[in-house]
Amino acid sequence: MRLSEYFLPTLKENPSEAQIASHRLMLRAGMIRQSSAGIYSWLPLGERVLKKISEIVRSEQNIAGAQEMLMPTIQPADIWKESGRYDAYGPELLRIRDRHNRDMLYGPTNEEQITEIIRSCVKSYRDLPKLLYHIQWKFRDEVRPRFGIMRGREFLMKDCYSFDFNYGAARRSYNKMFVAYLRTFARMGLTAIPMRAESGPIGGDMSHEFIIMADTGESQVFCHADCFDYNVLEELVDYQSDLEPLVSRWTDLYAATDEQHDSSEFERSVPPDKRCEARGIEVGHIFYFGTKYSEAMGAFVSGPDGGRVTMEMGSYGIGVSRLVGAIIEANHDDDGIIWPDSVAPFRVGVVNLKPEDHKCNVLGGEVYEKLRTNGIDTLYEDREGRAGVKFANMDLIGLPWQLIIGPRGAAGGRVELKSRKTGQRDELSMEDAIKRVIA
Amino acid sequence: MRLSEYFLPTLKENPSEAQIASHRLMLRAGMIRQSSAGIYSWLPLGERVLKKISEIVRSEQNIAGAQEMLMPTIQPADIWKESGRYDAYGPELLRIRDRHNRDMLYGPTNEEQITEIIRSCVKSYRDLPKLLYHIQWKFRDEVRPRFGIMRGREFLMKDCYSFDFNYGAARRSYNKMFVAYLRTFARMGLTAIPMRAESGPIGGDMSHEFIIMADTGESQVFCHADCFDYNVLEELVDYQSDLEPLVSRWTDLYAATDEQHDSSEFERSVPPDKRCEARGIEVGHIFYFGTKYSEAMGAFVSGPDGGRVTMEMGSYGIGVSRLVGAIIEANHDDDGIIWPDSVAPFRVGVVNLKPEDHKCNVLGGEVYEKLRTNGIDTLYEDREGRAGVKFANMDLIGLPWQLIIGPRGAAGGRVELKSRKTGQRDELSMEDAIKRVIA
Repeated sequence: MRLSEYFLPTLKENPSEAQIASHRLMLRAGMIRQSSAGIYSWLPLGERVLKKISEIVRSEQNIAGAQEMLMPTIQPADIWKESGRYDAYGPELLRIRDRHNRDMLYGPTNEEQITEIIRSCVKSYRDLPKLLYHIQWKFRDEVRPRFGIMRGREFLMKDCYSFDFNYGAARRSYNKMFVAYLRTFARMGLTAIPMRAESGPIGGDMSHEFIIMADTGESQVFCHADCFDYNVLEELVDYQSDLEPLVSRWTDLYAATDEQHDSSEFERSVPPDKRCEARGIEVGHIFYFGTKYSEAMGAFVSGPDGGRVTMEMGSYGIGVSRLVGAIIEANHDDDGIIWPDSVAPFRVGVVNLKPEDHKCNVLGGEVYEKLRTNGIDTLYEDREGRAGVKFANMDLIGLPWQLIIGPRGAAGGRVELKSRKTGQRDELSMEDAIKRVIA
Repeated sequence: MRLSEYFLPTLKENPSEAQIASHRLMLRAGMIRQSSAGIYSWLPLGERVLKKISEIVRSEQNIAGAQEMLMPTIQPADIWKESGRYDAYGPELLRIRDRHNRDMLYGPTNEEQITEIIRSCVKSYRDLPKLLYHIQWKFRDEVRPRFGIMRGREFLMKDCYSFDFNYGAARRSYNKMFVAYLRTFARMGLTAIPMRAESGPIGGDMSHEFIIMADTGESQVFCHADCFDYNVLEELVDYQSDLEPLVSRWTDLYAATDEQHDSSEFERSVPPDKRCEARGIEVGHIFYFGTKYSEAMGAFVSGPDGGRVTMEMGSYGIGVSRLVGAIIEANHDDDGIIWPDSVAPFRVGVVNLKPEDHKCNVLGGEVYEKLRTNGIDTLYEDREGRAGVKFANMDLIGLPWQLIIGPRGAAGGRVELKSRKTGQRDELSMEDAIKRVIA
């Protein structure tokens, strides 16, 4: 993409409304623009990141055996009345009346809707397990939306739902999502720690929030420092196998959010030099809730002996749009964003310091085309302007590589390659620079 | 995907509420399920088609130089008051009040929102042209939703908006979308004819509806029969060039919807044996409206002489979810859907007639794995049951190829390959059958 054509309205000044780094940087980098309180438009650069994150989430859901579907944003109030949540949910629920005066709502989540579908379509224990997800916009009418897309009103969420015949099977579904979530966040360059979370009316140990550490996080968290040493991407995962040993590698170590924190257990089970206390951002939540919805809504199957069995359910959420902010909170410096490779909107920015110079223009065009034809997402700074502004802009938007073309090097086909993360700069031939970017 | 695990709740009976083929077949094939009047959940098979169609739309928008972004579903009423549409729009506009009593709405379209963004971010004629699109859910509170997703309330639409400095540039943007639309529909196996449509307050010849012929279409249309002979995919398109000659290949021939039909011109310009009168379904609409919104909302740039120039705009919509239905209306028979290759949810269905037979089971598993590892979307009928039911089910869901494994052939590694479209069946070795499916 040529910057002379791209719609990238970056800001020079820090926007006064932004209190945290991700909000500030997303506005400055031209990724988002507020539409109304807590509701944002995703401009082209932001939309690219949102899509890359969605694709990683989708890919890991599919690998774990979950099937994608797509439920609507507007739900009938009836099913929420059945579950009892229509009255229980506070003013965060956006209630709507349609032209025929029917009560509707903008879904903040989809337990009722998926339960309604499954109770009508699934009749026998032989049709279980079912693990279904969608990636869809949700609405939560926050009283004070803040931190940009981190606590917005309209947000993109992946929510998955499991339906099982008994507790053992439900636990297998839970473990699949547990591992899929570890892999999902790891692929985005994040260390997300699963922490014991409030388990609702059922109790038990099957509720975990996935938390990444950041000073601006909304929760206080406590964990064993060894949690940070495990890398799930080094594990050979077989979703058909019993995942319990893998899951317990994480769950055996102390890790809890504020609400679930037990300081005496913390001190008993974690040596002093391993006690980690920090602020965290929740990026995912997995939750087993047994028959809460299936009981209320009559979702049952016939068992092997013909008897009626109420299905066991769980739900599994990832804040897809929130992740964009969370990744920035974990990956930035004073100059701007530092995108991990897997979610970067473009892999490389080609910076032409003097496009009005013939040699620079030819070399710049050649580099840009070579990268493009090798399938590398490339942003080409082909506009006239001061070098300092171009460098600052590239650092701000934080692409992993900057390939810099200046009049001095261009004569000999030499370019400079800069890594945004390490700051290291190397002078290379055009070919070597391209090879290093592609690798 | 193994059918023993896949969530595909097909129906044996014709649902009584469905009046047209696509609605009936989408319900029967387990693609969608009604949530409330005019609002549907897309089950896994339907979601796959919706995604394939979206990807084709996206790819052609990008090729034409449009840039993807993503605007929210919920808009503030303020900008609609600025444009004057808040009062002008009827009860189809879903009006919402949030917890702070602010007037909001679920967007049926996004002219105001994109104009608000562009007027704040684009200041100079040098930043034009801009061609921006998104693929997002829309809501139109139809008084009588009908025909399934063809005339639903919540629907997925691609809408693109152009901003230009003058009429000539606006016409170039219009022509880009004209050609992109021809290519988009052609890639889905549809012959969509651009027809003169109501051009709104500005008049002129820059408004076209793209119509596909189907007996169940809601509009009466009139056109020159030669319209059907052109195939844009045989043309070498260069979006940097003047597209006027290519566009006029279509616009020179008479083609108009009911509202724009001029019977004396029709009879004068079309020979009797070329006069085509039929029912049609609108799948896209492109529209130049000059400064209608930019004037009302103060969207201007500074021109080369420093003067203020109000931007020229156009909008370009494709009904993405509606296309699923339109494609079925154009591609089905008494037995079910006949998917064009490019949008089929799976390319091949492997039908194991006797999975309980050891040889069938081994061969079926082998074929399924070979297809999968060659990147072919494959649905594997691995359930026990009667052959007749399996065949009827496969014909219903309409995958392009059926690869049938029975006990007789399995012993010698022979399978039967059936084309859903032609009905032709060939007995082949497993290898040859796979090769033909991959080709």
